[in-house]
Amino acid sequence: MIYLDNGATSYPKPPEVIESFMDVMMNYCANPGRAGHFMAARTSQEIFKTRLVLARLFNIDTPGQIVFTKNCTEGLNMAFKGILREGEHVVTTSMEHNSVVRPLKALEKKDITTTIVPCSKTGELSVEAVRKAIRPNTRIIAVTAASNVTGTKMPLEEIGRLALRLGILMMVDGAQGAGHMEIDVKKHRIDILAVPGHKGLMGPQGTGLLYVREGIPVRPLLEGGTGSRSNQLDPELTFPESYEAGTVNAPGIIALGEAARVLNKIGVGAIENHERKLTEKLQEGIKDIAGVTLYGPKNYKKKTAVVAMNIDDMDCEKVASLLNDKYGIAVRAGFHCSGLAHKTMGTERTGCVRMCPGFYTSEKEINDTIKAIKDIALSEK
Amino acid sequence: MIYLDNGATSYPKPPEVIESFMDVMMNYCANPGRAGHFMAARTSQEIFKTRLVLARLFNIDTPGQIVFTKNCTEGLNMAFKGILREGEHVVTTSMEHNSVVRPLKALEKKDITTTIVPCSKTGELSVEAVRKAIRPNTRIIAVTAASNVTGTKMPLEEIGRLALRLGILMMVDGAQGAGHMEIDVKKHRIDILAVPGHKGLMGPQGTGLLYVREGIPVRPLLEGGTGSRSNQLDPELTFPESYEAGTVNAPGIIALGEAARVLNKIGVGAIENHERKLTEKLQEGIKDIAGVTLYGPKNYKKKTAVVAMNIDDMDCEKVASLLNDKYGIAVRAGFHCSGLAHKTMGTERTGCVRMCPGFYTSEKEINDTIKAIKDIALSEK
Repeated sequence: MIYLDNGATSYPKPPEVIESFMDVMMNYCANPGRAGHFMAARTSQEIFKTRLVLARLFNIDTPGQIVFTKNCTEGLNMAFKGILREGEHVVTTSMEHNSVVRPLKALEKKDITTTIVPCSKTGELSVEAVRKAIRPNTRIIAVTAASNVTGTKMPLEEIGRLALRLGILMMVDGAQGAGHMEIDVKKHRIDILAVPGHKGLMGPQGTGLLYVREGIPVRPLLEGGTGSRSNQLDPELTFPESYEAGTVNAPGIIALGEAARVLNKIGVGAIENHERKLTEKLQEGIKDIAGVTLYGPKNYKKKTAVVAMNIDDMDCEKVASLLNDKYGIAVRAGFHCSGLAHKTMGTERTGCVRMCPGFYTSEKEINDTIKAIKDIALSEK
Repeated sequence: MIYLDNGATSYPKPPEVIESFMDVMMNYCANPGRAGHFMAARTSQEIFKTRLVLARLFNIDTPGQIVFTKNCTEGLNMAFKGILREGEHVVTTSMEHNSVVRPLKALEKKDITTTIVPCSKTGELSVEAVRKAIRPNTRIIAVTAASNVTGTKMPLEEIGRLALRLGILMMVDGAQGAGHMEIDVKKHRIDILAVPGHKGLMGPQGTGLLYVREGIPVRPLLEGGTGSRSNQLDPELTFPESYEAGTVNAPGIIALGEAARVLNKIGVGAIENHERKLTEKLQEGIKDIAGVTLYGPKNYKKKTAVVAMNIDDMDCEKVASLLNDKYGIAVRAGFHCSGLAHKTMGTERTGCVRMCPGFYTSEKEINDTIKAIKDIALSEK
């Protein structure tokens, strides 16, 4: 199978990640932080090392401010629901995923309001429009690092600077950015960063992280056992343990650490270059096919490894089915959990086909995909 | 290492579980419910099959009412916070884990009150005392299936009958019961059941489930993408997808399904018998050692595979350290995330040593543990 659904989850995983997972499961996986025996201690140590290596990946000085989550959605929910208070306001964009806009919609019941800044048809955001949307009660500016539908990158550095200047928190949904492009909490002045472990970071599903800058008070989403202060019903909140109630996914987290080691070694810049080359090849190869419509920025530097398209007025689900059934190519069609992005792009009725090359995609696979799309476009005439 | 910390997490896992995890990770792990291609479809199918096999394990007729969670704590939080409304009341017991009593403590801010019914020193619960604690606004009776400190089983069937008669929801924390004793939602009349995947079920960490009987309205803990109704910001709630926002831990869930298959094949009754034999052997072997104090019921049928003890006035952490350092035996000491249980047992100042044999514990390991405890008790004289 030619796997071009890396926007949903990366596949395959680096062999080191799978080996690491196996090693934990087979050899020492106890419950970290719950006992002092060798196995529990080793599990705790390896989890701590994962915090360090992830901190390095995002240039975070305080690894203890990294909370492990089950996915990026949990991190985003924890941040919005844990940080925002009644009467506060959020500025976000029209290219956000439902994991950002649905929690914000739910928070309307608590008198927390949101302004959605419209992006251009290619998903690009004007920092000036963000600035204009800010109100005296704006607490958070929340932006995706890159759109999951078009790959369009957001101007993180400029928004970070604006947020800093105005004393507003800068929150980044790293779901489609992490591992695919530079995300540097210092350079981009990010206060809150939510990231999945299983997409660009190439770790296992069931993992993710939320980073919150030291000093920002957060209410936890879950209360429960943390292995410490067992005798207190309402213990003082401390990072990270108060936000990791219950048994964490130790083998998943440790394998994610191994994935981050792989990324640090290769370098996110090198991965981005490789993926950009494949994206460019794919997009250049199909852009002149009669009937093909492409979405998102034309400049490859302005986006991550996503090619969004439609063929004539063919149902995008049908195109995806043909690619799968006839050519063995895995893509995703539909609305990609981002209804607002499709309104922005003008595809709110049709959805689109999304193709995401990944680190392990080969040039030959891209060539085969181009041929398949040509074939489908021609056969539909 | 002799691993007697199965109350924290089971180790080792059945080989089938590890093989299943590997198979998913290596061969087809896409994002379930997000695309139609072969890999995503297969991932979805295997997750659906896991719902079926878990439903069989707990005698659940409606597998679609099973929500996958990251751990038991998430399920308990989702149930309490999603079901209870302002002004309602909960009855629970003094043997509960912090994953039950801490969310309830947090809900006091929302005018949701809790009555904690005191258990006996051995952790046993009087159904009559539960009945007396019920108020007109009681919505949920929440009990653990078995205490995580003493193993004491709660009278699930009687409480279920009481709850049914009074129109109150019966909620069970299956953290220490599932896989170790019968939990049958029909026989025990359970409306809400939260279970971890990595303890008695012998699945991987990062998994768990929450079952909620059909027709009970639940607000989700997290909003986000679910792969369906992408164009709606506030879609109608449907089980299970509305409660599984974001990418689920597909390989973990599928491996948990394999674990449940192993359990269904061996039979929970057979596992319980095996573990009881080991527990009895351990407890009988140490009960007459001078200085050893045991906690919990004396009748082995009244508890799961937990032996809780102290040696004279030795610090329980020191006993655990000696067992680890000198004898290579992994146990847990301290308060086990259950301060209330220790108050009930009279060990609120000392904590205790907890030893939990598991399905893979051998008689030889139990003999070695008895010898080590004798040794420690003697050397301290």
